[in-house]
Amino acid sequence: MELTVYLAGQIHDNWREEVEKKAKERNLPLVFVGPQTDHERSDNIGEDILGKQPGNVYKDDAASDINNFRTQVLMQKSDIVIALFGDKYKQWNTAMDASTAIALNRPTIIIRHESLIHPLKELSNKANVTVETIDQALDVVGYIFE
Amino acid sequence: MELTVYLAGQIHDNWREEVEKKAKERNLPLVFVGPQTDHERSDNIGEDILGKQPGNVYKDDAASDINNFRTQVLMQKSDIVIALFGDKYKQWNTAMDASTAIALNRPTIIIRHESLIHPLKELSNKANVTVETIDQALDVVGYIFE
Amino acid sequence: MELTVYLAGQIHDNWREEVEKKAKERNLPLVFVGPQTDHERSDNIGEDILGKQPGNVYKDDAASDINNFRTQVLMQKSDIVIALFGDKYKQWNTAMDASTAIALNRPTIIIRHESLIHPLKELSNKANVTVETIDQALDVVGYIFE
Amino acid sequence: MELTVYLAGQIHDNWREEVEKKAKERNLPLVFVGPQTDHERSDNIGEDILGKQPGNVYKDDAASDINNFRTQVLMQKSDIVIALFGDKYKQWNTAMDASTAIALNRPTIIIRHESLIHPLKELSNKANVTVETIDQALDVVGYIFE
Amino acid sequence: MELTVYLAGQIHDNWREEVEKKAKERNLPLVFVGPQTDHERSDNIGEDILGKQPGNVYKDDAASDINNFRTQVLMQKSDIVIALFGDKYKQWNTAMDASTAIALNRPTIIIRHESLIHPLKELSNKANVTVETIDQALDVVGYIFE
Amino acid sequence: MELTVYLAGQIHDNWREEVEKKAKERNLPLVFVGPQTDHERSDNIGEDILGKQPGNVYKDDAASDINNFRTQVLMQKSDIVIALFGDKYKQWNTAMDASTAIALNRPTIIIRHESLIHPLKELSNKANVTVETIDQALDVVGYIFE
Amino acid sequence: MELTVYLAGQIHDNWREEVEKKAKERNLPLVFVGPQTDHERSDNIGEDILGKQPGNVYKDDAASDINNFRTQVLMQKSDIVIALFGDKYKQWNTAMDASTAIALNRPTIIIRHESLIHPLKELSNKANVTVETIDQALDVVGYIFE
Amino acid sequence: MELTVYLAGQIHDNWREEVEKKAKERNLPLVFVGPQTDHERSDNIGEDILGKQPGNVYKDDAASDINNFRTQVLMQKSDIVIALFGDKYKQWNTAMDASTAIALNRPTIIIRHESLIHPLKELSNKANVTVETIDQALDVVGYIFE
Repeated sequence: MELTVYLAGQIHDNWREEVEKKAKERNLPLVFVGPQTDHERSDNIGEDILGKQPGNVYKDDAASDINNFRTQVLMQKSDIVIALFGDKYKQWNTAMDASTAIALNRPTIIIRHESLIHPLKELSNKANVTVETIDQALDVVGYIFE
Repeated sequence: MELTVYLAGQIHDNWREEVEKKAKERNLPLVFVGPQTDHERSDNIGEDILGKQPGNVYKDDAASDINNFRTQVLMQKSDIVIALFGDKYKQWNTAMDASTAIALNRPTIIIRHESLIHPLKELSNKANVTVETIDQALDVVGYIFE
Repeated sequence: MELTVYLAGQIHDNWREEVEKKAKERNLPLVFVGPQTDHERSDNIGEDILGKQPGNVYKDDAASDINNFRTQVLMQKSDIVIALFGDKYKQWNTAMDASTAIALNRPTIIIRHESLIHPLKELSNKANVTVETIDQALDVVGYIFE
Repeated sequence: MELTVYLAGQIHDNWREEVEKKAKERNLPLVFVGPQTDHERSDNIGEDILGKQPGNVYKDDAASDINNFRTQVLMQKSDIVIALFGDKYKQWNTAMDASTAIALNRPTIIIRHESLIHPLKELSNKANVTVETIDQALDVVGYIFE
Repeated sequence: MELTVYLAGQIHDNWREEVEKKAKERNLPLVFVGPQTDHERSDNIGEDILGKQPGNVYKDDAASDINNFRTQVLMQKSDIVIALFGDKYKQWNTAMDASTAIALNRPTIIIRHESLIHPLKELSNKANVTVETIDQALDVVGYIFE
Repeated sequence: MELTVYLAGQIHDNWREEVEKKAKERNLPLVFVGPQTDHERSDNIGEDILGKQPGNVYKDDAASDINNFRTQVLMQKSDIVIALFGDKYKQWNTAMDASTAIALNRPTIIIRHESLIHPLKELSNKANVTVETIDQALDVVGYIFE
Repeated sequence: MELTVYLAGQIHDNWREEVEKKAKERNLPLVFVGPQTDHERSDNIGEDILGKQPGNVYKDDAASDINNFRTQVLMQKSDIVIALFGDKYKQWNTAMDASTAIALNRPTIIIRHESLIHPLKELSNKANVTVETIDQALDVVGYIFE
Repeated sequence: MELTVYLAGQIHDNWREEVEKKAKERNLPLVFVGPQTDHERSDNIGEDILGKQPGNVYKDDAASDINNFRTQVLMQKSDIVIALFGDKYKQWNTAMDASTAIALNRPTIIIRHESLIHPLKELSNKANVTVETIDQALDVVGYIFE
């Protein structure tokens, strides 16, 4: 039984590669999907496809159309969502993806640094499991196959 | 990950072939499905199967039963809907298929000529993305695989 | 038992008033809701609330946000949808509202002129009932209370 | 037709009172509900009811159980969600409530300061309408009753 | 707490009046709805509203549009469905209404004569309760209020 | 694209074999499933597994548990339902399966003899397509692959 | 805003009366519903309505039909479920009602004695809130109205 | 057609191995999944992954997060649920899993000893089939493939 995992969260470091590498080392039968991780491409995708927009609000909205399209397609193909909250930025996309996943009954794991416990407490409470490290998240997913 | 794409819209030119050819050139792992594109067959399918009907209303209703059956089966098998609005005809089937797809949470792209912006504005607003060309639509779908 | 009826369709003549007047004459316990019927206000509502937009596409999109918000709120409160197709314009909003209503299991009546039978045949086939006049539509709704 | 509006968002100033006051001035038939706005009570509600917990993580989790219970009950009774993002804090609860509302097909308005356009762009894109002021949000809701 | 009860089943005798009369005698807070019970009107309603159809198949289909519209509206307003199977006719509408109610999670009671046990066994098994008399059906509904 | 078809209906002749044979001759990529067609086994399955029951009502109920279990599993795996109504028996299982399929949005074809038009009119109206012969049903399904 | 609360759980003492009395003292706008609390009536309701059954298994199954009917009707009318686990009996009905409520997105509170923490841990984890006393459960519900 | 079966129930003996062995002997095309069956591992999984918790309540809650995550993932991949109730322990997880499966329309078989008929009667009544032995459960599943 192969499971598809959507990796929601920040696109500012290579945490997804770390997840994939470690999952491989554990021989977990997982396929990973997620958002566009090239930040510039993600911000520009609206103008890249639709052409110059009349200002930043419109550029952002055009990009969001396409980023949300991608997320919707891939999350509907996923069995599990792992959402990682880092220590920088607003990360409202991560909160949005995790909340959407939970509302649609996708089993969801949140990874967050200890310092985020308080501001994330209600969302963390609604997720299935909250952990602090990638290894712990893979421990949880790996537990399915024991 | 292979995705199935329902191509809703007019059946008066060969735009679906263009989509398929261009998707192939880009090596996108897509399977395409859609309505009957032989217009005459689509209009006559009710009488072709059920026999002569007592007038055009009844001929049309018989054909619609079977066209709607086909659409329902294939849209339920699809991950994405692309709906193209051309510059002719009422195109209410295209509007119906796009609206149904959106109501059923199928990620949806609308392709429409610039001249249709105003009459299509509410539907366009509900779709995930609206573009003007087939190439742009494939840019959007291709973005999933980046 | 009072029923709420959403009146989808063109906003270019006073057909909704006619429906309400005739429903009253028949003493049908109906409450009617529907889209903004002041066409100019409907087209300008985005700029009226959000301020000047940088061009017609953006003006239209801003208006659509708010028109779709209104429709979603009111259709969710409705027990029945009546959609009237007139003889002018693209009427894609009417097709969108009727299709959405059907996809969400709202019992739906279509009123359309005989000349529209063919282009509307698939949508007509999915609606519960298709009639040609307001009186017939009220006959159908009134039948519930017999 | 009276509508119930859930007011999601920060609990650090009296914006909800402003909404209610202005809605009253406009004679809008709205009932407002929302989260606990006494911040201290919200943070302590777990220990207030269940007693002393063994540390902050557990105190937070106990409070979240009860805050999420309240939100779930009240959002299920609501016809509309208005989510206000202020200029301080992480505001992940606001993002969570807005995302949940959207996933559950509750018509949703976001109010956010211009400075938040970029980080909020994907969520804003999924909401029905995004505005910058309380007055604009009430303009949108008031439009339903025109 | 008042409950609405849809009375599905044959329209060839006055069993619905008996149900209503007996419910009143027991002071049960129930509102009853159901199909058109004037058999001729039910069969002719299509032609009554839409005019002469070109043969019986079309007359029947037109009537069914409107009968199904009525049933869908009223069943969606109901808390409970009681379906009575008599000893005559095919009664496929009764089977259809009971099956639909069960598929939509409406609590359902079947009333059927002992002679129908075998042919009705799978449907009876899916309903909540199967009884043989109107009094027993009202015993079951009345039990809610004990 | 292979489709799974549930064949609901009578188990008194070999119509399912005819469907399968003809589908094969047409090279349609279909997998067929359906109820137990050995009538005696179907009636006795409750006692065959659970042992002697105290009378026919209980024997029937035990069999129905297991027949309904089988139908639920297989219908959930199906893309299409074909329901055949023959000229004998009550056939309430066929009506139940077709109604359930329609309520669960399974595209549904009814095959029925001309003599059954009137008693089956409302169910026929709710199905996608109604035909009179197995060949016509396969014409409809085959149309998907044109 | 009045809320309806389903009180699931044991029927061996008068805990429901205590809940209702205390809710009244707090002036909470709550309506309470629940299962039949006369244990003997609950066990005999099948035979009371349907007559003598051929043994205890059949007597129990007949009673369950009617008890489950009652629960389904009343839980569908409820906004909140409170499930109390006492210190005696298997209490599988309580577990069933709480689990069903959670699966259907009814906000759910569990009341259980400290001694039950371990065997109830997974269900408790899925409920919104778990408390030990009736007063705490009413604190939680009362918190909605603060 | 291969079916996935979730085996809910006690983890105190090797009944799952017996099911798998017997299914293999019958050549049934079944894949089996289920909860963690190493009782100690199941109880400790929270602390194994998240580290020492401040007392048993918190240890149990941490374990439940992860056990519920596993169950949710695997039950969503299953076509059938078999729930076995043994003669010891509270077995509320078994009741929870069976109830959840039924609420989510998973076809469900309960295996329970004769002594449990009365306390399990309402849940048993809601399941598709209730049997007393593993062989009978496999008879029921095997019947699908006859």
